Amino acid sequence: MKNSTDLYKKKTEGSAKLFKTSKKYHVNGVHHNIRFFEPYPFVTKSASGKFLIDVDSNKYTDYWMGHWSLILGHTAKNIEKAAIDQIKNGWMHGTSNQNTILLSEKISKAVPVAEKIRYVTTGTEATMYAVRLARAATGKKIVAKIDGGWHGYTTDLLKTVNWPFEQSESKGLTDEKSIRSLPYNNLEKSLGILESVKKDLAGVVVEPVLGGGGAIPATKDYLKGIEEFTKKNNSLFILDEIVTGFRFRYGCLYNTMKLDPDIITLGKIVGGGFPIGVICGKNDIMEHANTITHSKKTRTYIGGGTFSANPLSMIAGSANLDLIKKNGNSLYKKINDLGDNTKKVLKKIFDEDVIITGKGSLFMTHFPKNNISKIDNATDAAKCDIKKLHKYHFEMIANDNIFFLPGKLGAISDAHSQSDVKCMKSATERFVTSFKK
Amino acid sequence: MKNSTDLYKKKTEGSAKLFKTSKKYHVNGVHHNIRFFEPYPFVTKSASGKFLIDVDSNKYTDYWMGHWSLILGHTAKNIEKAAIDQIKNGWMHGTSNQNTILLSEKISKAVPVAEKIRYVTTGTEATMYAVRLARAATGKKIVAKIDGGWHGYTTDLLKTVNWPFEQSESKGLTDEKSIRSLPYNNLEKSLGILESVKKDLAGVVVEPVLGGGGAIPATKDYLKGIEEFTKKNNSLFILDEIVTGFRFRYGCLYNTMKLDPDIITLGKIVGGGFPIGVICGKNDIMEHANTITHSKKTRTYIGGGTFSANPLSMIAGSANLDLIKKNGNSLYKKINDLGDNTKKVLKKIFDEDVIITGKGSLFMTHFPKNNISKIDNATDAAKCDIKKLHKYHFEMIANDNIFFLPGKLGAISDAHSQSDVKCMKSATERFVTSFKK
Repeated sequence: MKNSTDLYKKKTEGSAKLFKTSKKYHVNGVHHNIRFFEPYPFVTKSASGKFLIDVDSNKYTDYWMGHWSLILGHTAKNIEKAAIDQIKNGWMHGTSNQNTILLSEKISKAVPVAEKIRYVTTGTEATMYAVRLARAATGKKIVAKIDGGWHGYTTDLLKTVNWPFEQSESKGLTDEKSIRSLPYNNLEKSLGILESVKKDLAGVVVEPVLGGGGAIPATKDYLKGIEEFTKKNNSLFILDEIVTGFRFRYGCLYNTMKLDPDIITLGKIVGGGFPIGVICGKNDIMEHANTITHSKKTRTYIGGGTFSANPLSMIAGSANLDLIKKNGNSLYKKINDLGDNTKKVLKKIFDEDVIITGKGSLFMTHFPKNNISKIDNATDAAKCDIKKLHKYHFEMIANDNIFFLPGKLGAISDAHSQSDVKCMKSATERFVTSFKK
Repeated sequence: MKNSTDLYKKKTEGSAKLFKTSKKYHVNGVHHNIRFFEPYPFVTKSASGKFLIDVDSNKYTDYWMGHWSLILGHTAKNIEKAAIDQIKNGWMHGTSNQNTILLSEKISKAVPVAEKIRYVTTGTEATMYAVRLARAATGKKIVAKIDGGWHGYTTDLLKTVNWPFEQSESKGLTDEKSIRSLPYNNLEKSLGILESVKKDLAGVVVEPVLGGGGAIPATKDYLKGIEEFTKKNNSLFILDEIVTGFRFRYGCLYNTMKLDPDIITLGKIVGGGFPIGVICGKNDIMEHANTITHSKKTRTYIGGGTFSANPLSMIAGSANLDLIKKNGNSLYKKINDLGDNTKKVLKKIFDEDVIITGKGSLFMTHFPKNNISKIDNATDAAKCDIKKLHKYHFEMIANDNIFFLPGKLGAISDAHSQSDVKCMKSATERFVTSFKK
């Protein structure tokens, strides 16, 4: 990797300097641990369409796309216009605003479970409140999640996010025993664990495609089996569609799987890249959070925060959904096809040496080792050659100006095109060749 | 109140209609419980300077000021310009950006405790991580807060926020026993409670001016006494300056009180009204969150979220601090003087019938009952005539187009002027007269 590191250092001298300053002020030099990579992450100056441009004017084709939140690419013109207009009319009213209704009309039509909607500012807050609602609605305590499931860093779900899953995620947690963790896509084992806690099981939180855990879709049978168990045992079925909502179609993934979740969490795409978290649920569940009909003794406190439903995030989300809806199937067909093409091309170049997971416009390359022959869950993904994946991604950053956050899955946006598949092809071919040397 | 309610309904017909729609989609019709008031909150169309303008074109002089986050008033031109420029260059990079350094240079100079800084997206997230750090750094579990202390709705601090404090804040909480609560400004009783848990005391979280709890400043002796106890017992002293940071001076309140906190949380003003939360701390404390020097086994996971340190919030905060610094003492002198004048005027009109708490540009009117003769803590505040306060605020909304979020403290911004003191004087005189009838 020496050559690539030298190349990277040479072209990112401005970033090196700034990152040194950043480390003086900031833990790890970053504000999200995953944003760090060796030798130092480049510092972005601006973004436009499919590109991130760093302070040294390197222009990277971006597959990270704002933590996968930008389905139209950076600076989509209609969102930009709506946001600028809003800024001129105030970005922080701190009161009720009309933009929430504009956004909710769209979400509620596309996501039938969203009989009631509550906006918060981050996905972390959304899943925290979803768990609180589940516990309140059921009067039970234990919440189950998936090994490798990533729902933000709320204390209520901070367990088994990163490999090795048996190790605590953090010092300073006090109630990990109220969280259970399930092996993804292994229904029998998962039901066994749930069975053992069913009397105190408030709910199960699942991503229909494991995001941070490795871009791994759940099987329909798995989700259906978990759902059935929760319904039978008076527990709630919570689908975290923060990554998957409006990613593959205009709506959620659950709609296509004949699932009937009690609560859905949304974020990312529905805010157009502006801060948002959404708790959607059926009337009877969400009613627990109604502080007009409930006294302090009986309510579930969702509260809210200073920035909840701020008019800027609301209008950006609304403008984003407007454009997605307008382009409709053609947008999804385009990015899903690009995803499929990319996967096919990579598969061919790597021959039998990789497993490519994902769905539609999301994809991730895994380099098997430890006898891994398929990737059904985050444990399989973690057993692959993570270092090689980092190397592959870093080489593309250094040599080809293609940006994946090293080790993370890629997301294709409407700003990408078939020419990007070709660029990725050449880049990957070079990587394979250099690796064989 | 009939007349005022009729008047309000008549002038807010558009809001009434929209709020009805909002209730169809949203729990309580709002996204922060405190934003609701009877008969329905008006719906804001835009904001500018000191004004909120609703969908019926009523123009209210705003003392709520975006949950007290807008010290320059709405749409401050320099923030507006910086934000629009940033939007054109991408609002969501998802990578390192230079704007964090711009903001941190300013914060670290003004807030010496901020040897290291980590940006998150909300105050709720900031206090959650502060508590996690305290537990990790000390290896202890219990965190103490103040009766009526409001640190966002993180599960880790969700206790004794709203009166009656002995009642749980919410169904669905599982670990309230790890939180202890102290009577504000009563050092003897507070130390007694802390003494009883000192072996397992990770830290104490205090606002130097109780915000949501009633605009009540802590005495220097109280804070000093709590700090001394924490230092003596290997616990952390955490000051939540989300409301007070950069509110009274260019920096924090603690700097003026010879305090030496381990962690400071910031938010609101330092983001210029854009989503932000900040954890500031000394190097040795923040080092626990360093995932480069710490393995999974020993780290404290601050993690981060999709919107952490997004370039828009960072540049808005930086532009805000630039302007505050430029106007320097004159800005603070102006708004603190306006606050003092307002308090004096109100005190005179209400004669001996009110207690006005607050500090500088923050103020809150309390109508004593239940033999309350001074307000030292949130219990005193809660025992006052809250209904009368709501009525006072609502009458001003209905009759005078002056907006306080009913029941909450008011914040004066740079957009306010001496003429607003006069308007509040007339409005209050009318309220007093009508009340005597």
